Amino acid sequence: MINLTRGVPPAEVFPIDDLIQAGEISLREDGKRIFQYSPAPGYPPLRDWLAAEHSVGSEQVFLGNSSLELFSFVIHILLGVRRRAFIESPSYDRANTLLQRSGAEVVPIPLHLDGMDLDAFEAQLKRGAPGLVYLITDFQNPMGNTTSLEKRQQLAAWAREYDFWIVEDAPYRRLRYSGKDLPTLYSFAPERVIHMASLSKILAPGLRLGYLVAEAGIVRQLTEWAVDTYISPVTPTQAMAYAYLKAGKLPDNIASLCRLYRPRLETMLAALDRYLPQASYPRPEGGFFLGVSLPEGVRMDWLLPRAEQAGLKLSDGRGFFIHPSDGERFVRLPFCSLTLTEIELAVKGLGRLVKEDYPQ
Amino acid sequence: MINLTRGVPPAEVFPIDDLIQAGEISLREDGKRIFQYSPAPGYPPLRDWLAAEHSVGSEQVFLGNSSLELFSFVIHILLGVRRRAFIESPSYDRANTLLQRSGAEVVPIPLHLDGMDLDAFEAQLKRGAPGLVYLITDFQNPMGNTTSLEKRQQLAAWAREYDFWIVEDAPYRRLRYSGKDLPTLYSFAPERVIHMASLSKILAPGLRLGYLVAEAGIVRQLTEWAVDTYISPVTPTQAMAYAYLKAGKLPDNIASLCRLYRPRLETMLAALDRYLPQASYPRPEGGFFLGVSLPEGVRMDWLLPRAEQAGLKLSDGRGFFIHPSDGERFVRLPFCSLTLTEIELAVKGLGRLVKEDYPQ
Repeated sequence: MINLTRGVPPAEVFPIDDLIQAGEISLREDGKRIFQYSPAPGYPPLRDWLAAEHSVGSEQVFLGNSSLELFSFVIHILLGVRRRAFIESPSYDRANTLLQRSGAEVVPIPLHLDGMDLDAFEAQLKRGAPGLVYLITDFQNPMGNTTSLEKRQQLAAWAREYDFWIVEDAPYRRLRYSGKDLPTLYSFAPERVIHMASLSKILAPGLRLGYLVAEAGIVRQLTEWAVDTYISPVTPTQAMAYAYLKAGKLPDNIASLCRLYRPRLETMLAALDRYLPQASYPRPEGGFFLGVSLPEGVRMDWLLPRAEQAGLKLSDGRGFFIHPSDGERFVRLPFCSLTLTEIELAVKGLGRLVKEDYPQ
Repeated sequence: MINLTRGVPPAEVFPIDDLIQAGEISLREDGKRIFQYSPAPGYPPLRDWLAAEHSVGSEQVFLGNSSLELFSFVIHILLGVRRRAFIESPSYDRANTLLQRSGAEVVPIPLHLDGMDLDAFEAQLKRGAPGLVYLITDFQNPMGNTTSLEKRQQLAAWAREYDFWIVEDAPYRRLRYSGKDLPTLYSFAPERVIHMASLSKILAPGLRLGYLVAEAGIVRQLTEWAVDTYISPVTPTQAMAYAYLKAGKLPDNIASLCRLYRPRLETMLAALDRYLPQASYPRPEGGFFLGVSLPEGVRMDWLLPRAEQAGLKLSDGRGFFIHPSDGERFVRLPFCSLTLTEIELAVKGLGRLVKEDYPQ
């Protein structure tokens, strides 16, 4: 069985020895502080380090026990009054869930290869500005596409004009296998964008270390919410990450991940070109996923059990859409933790299923 | 300035070397699993270990990034329908805050030295059963008192009869300096009680490691909520705690904490008897705190600035009450991280203030 359901890194990429060493160094140097309650925005040296990395003040950085949970905090802060949110369609299934759980109105905006459909966005904007817009600008989950420069600029301009917040989730940004970085959305409107990042995909998910960069007022509100929720985040793992980053080891780790993942993406694209020419999909330049729209007529309830019989465990594509029926023929293909052979076999199997069997 | 505001352990008690060693052992043995996403209820070996410790099945144990956050999850699960909660008055200020943040009706039940006022409890019960009752049975925060055996049994009986849940928060239970353990409330009604515990007070708060024991159905609901909130909790610290516990080091650590804290409590009681005979306070047998009702006439707005001038930083007693005015003359005195001299000086200073100066 080839598992295509989760976007997790393969366990063999975790730099375990370096992390053990970093943990020991940090605890020997600063154990009394690390094992005590710490400030709610995070372990101060790591906060300072990340602030420098992003060229902002430390008071603009907020760390937590996963970027997903940080997003749940952001939702509480931003959707208290204006209970309306826009999200790319499709988007990260867990972000959809958190927004829907909040009870706010969640408006899906169709996603094209260069980013959200701006006509649909503007039409919704005129019906009522949102409390927040959530998007994944680089190597989107589940599509793999990247929002264009022009669309970043337009969204930033609207955020200022219509006075709404944008949450730019960027966990995959540093995993680029070809092409060139675009400026972050945050860089175009730092007073209106919350930039979220994470160490899960570039170091190790078990650390559950997410952080965000935003204007200081947002960070103050998040701090209050976090204190009331858990007093302070888990600190030894933040200190471990700090010692690891300070030792300068992250760039090499990212380079080694890119060397590993790039041929996996290329193999997947080549297999799609070969076995699924009738499907549509982007050509991502990085990240973990590739979103495939299968030919019309395919339906999830038909596809999932047949894929399972053929040895392929697929995510239910409907989970990535606010209106589940929009995902009837959508498949998210993660490629980072599969071997080249598995990738070839998976796409070949999917191609065979879709080509021969589905009810026309 | 003597700081009497926070109930934190003194940093010199953290067994840093043992924890470093435990962290290294666990990561060397199981690093690939620890640095990956883990199951939402917690690192499996630690979950199993705690289940054995509490003589329950592993499916009845749920771990999280602090017991405070676990309580926030419990609130979401239990107060969704029956939006009414009972809480001891006074109680842990952060529990008050979380309950009030939920939007539920929060009913304070007066606290006596042997536990909640059962007449008041029953009267409220007849007006409407709560979704949950929150209490700290052993060495209560902020009072220091312990709920009697009879009251535990009555509460358990009512929980079954009126079909409500009790959250028994027990972070101090293992820090007993005299007397004998009473059976947990959980033991009287395991199908109606959620027993919460934490490593913050018996090992180190920076680990942010809380857990609860409950029937499996509650754990399943919490698991779903946690997955949606943060996918999985921080794992390396859970693995570190597991290796520490498995090595059998916790009992010695607790014994050494009791040796350190016991004379601090005794000194505080002796100082209160001497310098504040006109105040009322319990004689705790363990824990971190002692709650003092100062003589009538004392008011917080009068007391706090004068205490500060006299070198004493006090918590605002009103924060421990749902109706803040009930705490006008209430002071919580933490004793664990103060030296014997500081304790003597603090109580002497408070006695002098209250005796000589307050407006009669």
